[in-house]
Amino acid sequence: MEAIDLRHHLNTLSLSRSPSPLKDIMKYMAVDGMVSLAGGLPHPSLFPFVDLEANVYSSNVDLHSNASRELIHLSIHKDDKNDGQVVNLATSLQYSPCTGLPWLLNFTHEFTRTVFRPAYKNFEVLLNEGSTDAWSKVVNLLCEMGDFILVEKQTYPTAQALWIPMGCSGVPIEMDAEGMRSDALEDALRSWDSDHPGVKRPHVLYTVPTGQNPTGCTMSARRKQEIYAICVKYDIIIVEDDPYYFLQFDEYIFGNGKQNGHAVAPSYDESLFLSSLERTFLSFDTEGRVIRLDTFSKTLAPGNRVGWFTCNPVFTERLLRATEVVTQTPSGWSQAILSELLRSWGISGYLKNWICDALGEAFDIKAGTSDEGLMVYGKGTSVRLFSFVPPRAGMFLWCKLYLKENKDFLAVKAEAGDEDPEAAFERKIWKELADEKVLLTPGSYYTPWQGKGKTSIATSGREQGVIFFRIAFSMTTKDDMALGIQRMAQVLRRSWGLA
Amino acid sequence: MEAIDLRHHLNTLSLSRSPSPLKDIMKYMAVDGMVSLAGGLPHPSLFPFVDLEANVYSSNVDLHSNASRELIHLSIHKDDKNDGQVVNLATSLQYSPCTGLPWLLNFTHEFTRTVFRPAYKNFEVLLNEGSTDAWSKVVNLLCEMGDFILVEKQTYPTAQALWIPMGCSGVPIEMDAEGMRSDALEDALRSWDSDHPGVKRPHVLYTVPTGQNPTGCTMSARRKQEIYAICVKYDIIIVEDDPYYFLQFDEYIFGNGKQNGHAVAPSYDESLFLSSLERTFLSFDTEGRVIRLDTFSKTLAPGNRVGWFTCNPVFTERLLRATEVVTQTPSGWSQAILSELLRSWGISGYLKNWICDALGEAFDIKAGTSDEGLMVYGKGTSVRLFSFVPPRAGMFLWCKLYLKENKDFLAVKAEAGDEDPEAAFERKIWKELADEKVLLTPGSYYTPWQGKGKTSIATSGREQGVIFFRIAFSMTTKDDMALGIQRMAQVLRRSWGLA
Repeated sequence: MEAIDLRHHLNTLSLSRSPSPLKDIMKYMAVDGMVSLAGGLPHPSLFPFVDLEANVYSSNVDLHSNASRELIHLSIHKDDKNDGQVVNLATSLQYSPCTGLPWLLNFTHEFTRTVFRPAYKNFEVLLNEGSTDAWSKVVNLLCEMGDFILVEKQTYPTAQALWIPMGCSGVPIEMDAEGMRSDALEDALRSWDSDHPGVKRPHVLYTVPTGQNPTGCTMSARRKQEIYAICVKYDIIIVEDDPYYFLQFDEYIFGNGKQNGHAVAPSYDESLFLSSLERTFLSFDTEGRVIRLDTFSKTLAPGNRVGWFTCNPVFTERLLRATEVVTQTPSGWSQAILSELLRSWGISGYLKNWICDALGEAFDIKAGTSDEGLMVYGKGTSVRLFSFVPPRAGMFLWCKLYLKENKDFLAVKAEAGDEDPEAAFERKIWKELADEKVLLTPGSYYTPWQGKGKTSIATSGREQGVIFFRIAFSMTTKDDMALGIQRMAQVLRRSWGLA
Repeated sequence: MEAIDLRHHLNTLSLSRSPSPLKDIMKYMAVDGMVSLAGGLPHPSLFPFVDLEANVYSSNVDLHSNASRELIHLSIHKDDKNDGQVVNLATSLQYSPCTGLPWLLNFTHEFTRTVFRPAYKNFEVLLNEGSTDAWSKVVNLLCEMGDFILVEKQTYPTAQALWIPMGCSGVPIEMDAEGMRSDALEDALRSWDSDHPGVKRPHVLYTVPTGQNPTGCTMSARRKQEIYAICVKYDIIIVEDDPYYFLQFDEYIFGNGKQNGHAVAPSYDESLFLSSLERTFLSFDTEGRVIRLDTFSKTLAPGNRVGWFTCNPVFTERLLRATEVVTQTPSGWSQAILSELLRSWGISGYLKNWICDALGEAFDIKAGTSDEGLMVYGKGTSVRLFSFVPPRAGMFLWCKLYLKENKDFLAVKAEAGDEDPEAAFERKIWKELADEKVLLTPGSYYTPWQGKGKTSIATSGREQGVIFFRIAFSMTTKDDMALGIQRMAQVLRRSWGLA
C-alpha cells in the first residue's frame, strides 16, 4: 500500500521552495575522471582532526546495578583505515547530504521499518537536529498564519512558543488516563463549522502519545486507532512526537512493594521487547498522514542534537528543501559518533521508578476514578489533595490539585474574584514550595494558547477549582526524591490547613 | 559608545516571541539545597558515553610542507577528571543554555573583541549552527513578506533560496573589484521612492565582504566605511556574512613566479597577522547596526555546524528567543571538541593558490581595466575570452566571458532572439565543459531574484553579451587544477572558433 496524495496540506511557504540549482552539478560530479572546479568545499586534508576515540557502555546493562559495566571502544579515523568503521572524519566533517550521512540514514530507515512498522510501503526518513528543529520544520511545512492546531489539553510550552508568534492557536482536546480522548476530538471536529463559522477547520494534530509531557499519559493502541480513523474522516495530518517511546515500563502496582522497572535495551531484533511496546500511530498509517518525530536526545543524550522524521515522500521532499536552507545537516561529530555507537548496539534506555514509593510514604493514596488514577489524601486525613495517573512511560507525573477544600484558595478567590483565582493561587503555592526548596513545574505552562481572548480559566472553559503541577522524575536521586516529596507534603498540609 | 535603539527593524514574527515560562524556574534551580522536580532532563549517569579522545594537528603548521605535523591529544571525560579540560560530557551532552556552552561563548566573545574590534561597547555574541542557520534566523528576525533585500549583483543561491519563498526580492547592487559599489548603493537608495512608488525601502543589506561567493572579491576598509555611512544615513542593517575572513592572502603578482600564499594561523594575540587582515564592518559599527556571522565551517571543518552571531543586545535577545524554539543548541559533541581544540590553539586556516599559475599556462593574460582585473586571451591570439579579478581571499575565482566575438553565441542569439540568448548559451557551453570533464558553476545561479517579471537579462537590466562562471580552487590538487584549466581552454578555443 502506498501513501495517498496529501500535497494539499502543504502551506504556501513550503510549496514555494525550489531545489538548489547546484543539484544539476552534483549529478555530474560522479562522472569518472571529472575535474570539478564547481563545488565550494574546503579540502579535507585541511581539517585539523586526525582521529577520534570514545569509550561507551555496551547495551543491555543495568546502569544502576553494581555489576561492572562493559566498555566498548569506538574508533573513527580521518580516512577508512580500519575495517569496521562505517564513517570517517573526512566525510562526516565535510559538507554532506542534507538527508544525513548514508549509513545513519539507512539505520534509521531500517529501525523505523522494524520497530515502528509503518502501514504503508513508500515511507521515507530524513535526519533533523532533534525534535525542536523537527517541530519547527513541520509547522513551517503545514501551517498558515491564523491556523488552529489540535493539541492535548495540556501541552509542552516550547512546542507552542514556536507557533504562537506565527498567529496560530491551539484547540485543546480533553484527555483521560489514556491521553487525548477520541470522542472529544470527534466532537470538536464535527461541530467546528457551527462553533467557528468561517474559520478554517484544523488540519494538523500534534500529540505526544507516550509518557506525554506534562501528564505522563500513554495512549493505548485502541485509542490511536480511533483517533487515526477520525483523522482520515476529517483529513487531518497527525504529528506523532514520540521522544519517550523507549522509556516505557511496566504498569505500577501500588502497594505491591516495588515497581518492576526493567531496563529497556533493545537490539532491534528483540521481538519480545518490541511486542511489549505500544503500537505507534505509524503502524496504523495506511495513508501516509502521520509525521513521526524520533530523537536520540532522550535515549542517548540531548547534546547529540540528532533525530529523524518518518513520513510520506511528498512531505520528506519538501522538508528536505527546507533543511537545505535552514540547517543543512546535523553535526558531523554527532552523526559520526552515533553511527559507530549504533553499529555496535542499537538503542537503549533506562528508567527510575522511585517516585510512586516516595509519594506513598508522604501521603495516603487510594484508587480514584479511572480518569483520576490514584487519589492522594493528607496523611491520616480524608482530605483530597491531588490525584495522578501512574505513568507507564516517560519522565513525568502530572498532579491535579483539588482546591475546593483549601481555605487559602478560597481566600485568594474571594480577593481575586473573576480575575483567574486559580492562576493567582498557583503562583502563590509554587512560591511556597520553592521557599521550602522543592521545585515543581506549574501546570499553567502547558495550557494551549487559544488566542488573546481566551487566557483565563473562565474564558477558556477550563475546569474551575483545580490546578496542576508536573513532577519530573528523571533527574533526581532516590534520596532527593524522598526529600522533595516530603517537603511538598509539608507545604500542602499547611496550605490545606492540616498541619 | 553603546548601540542605538534599532528595535524598529524587528519583524512581526520576531516581536511576537515570548521568553519560555521555564525561565522563572531556572533562576530557582541555582538555590542551594533545592530539590528540583521541575526540569525534564535525562540524568547524565544514563548517557552511555564515558570519554572521548581526539588527535588534532597543532596550529602554525603548513599542512602541505613535508615537515612532520605536530599532533595534539584532546581528552574529554564525562566528569571533570583532568585539570585542563574546559568542558565535560555530562554537561555538553545535556540540555544546555541556548546561548552556547559558557566556555565557547566566552571564547567567541573575546575573539570577536580582539580580532574584529566592534566600535561599540555592548555588543553580544550568540552561538548558532553555522551560517545557513544564522542567515535563516536573521531573515526571520528582520524581514517581512514582500521586503526587498540589498544584495551584491552576484549572490549565493542558497542564501536566496531561503527568502524567495517568503516573498522577498533582491535589489542587486553593482560590484567592482572591491565588491559592492558604494555609489551604486547610494543611487539605489536615493532614487528608491521615485523608482518604486509605494514600496517600502529596503532596510537590510546582505554582503559577503571577504572572498565573496562567487566573485572572490574582497571589500577594502575604505569601501566598508563608505557603505557603513550610507547605511547610517538610510537606516539599514548590515548583515556581514564573513565565512572566508581567515582565508585572506597576499595580492597575486602575475608573472612574478609564485603567489605568496601564507598559512593563516593566528593565535589571537598575533598583532602582526591581525593587522594584515582587512578591517571588518563591525570595526566601523558605532551604532550596533551590523549583524556579523562567523563560522568554524570554513576554517576548521563544515561538519562542526557551529558559528556565532555578533550584534547589539536587542537583536541577540530576539535571536535567542528564536533559537529556543527553532534549534535549541549546536551539537554538544561539536561544542565540546571545538572548546578543547580552541583552548589549545585559536583559529587556523590555510590556502592554495595554484589556479592563477594554471591559467597563465593555458591562456595569454594581460592587465585589463580596474573593473575587469586581468584580461584573458586565447593563447597566441588577440581574442578576448574572459576576465577575472585575482582573489585576495576565499575559495573562488569569478570569470566574466565576453561573447560578442563568439560565433557560436551569435548563432544561438539569432535563434533564441529575445528569449535570453545568454542563458541558452551558458547552458550549452556548460554542457560542453562537462562533456570534456571539467565542472564549473554557471554564473546565472548567483543572479539575485528580483521577482517574477525580472528573470531574463533584458528584463532585469543585466549586461548583455556576457556570461559568468565560478571556478572553485579549494578542493582540487595542483595537477587536477592544471588539467581542468587545460580542458577549459580547449572548450573555449573551440567555442570561439580558435581551434
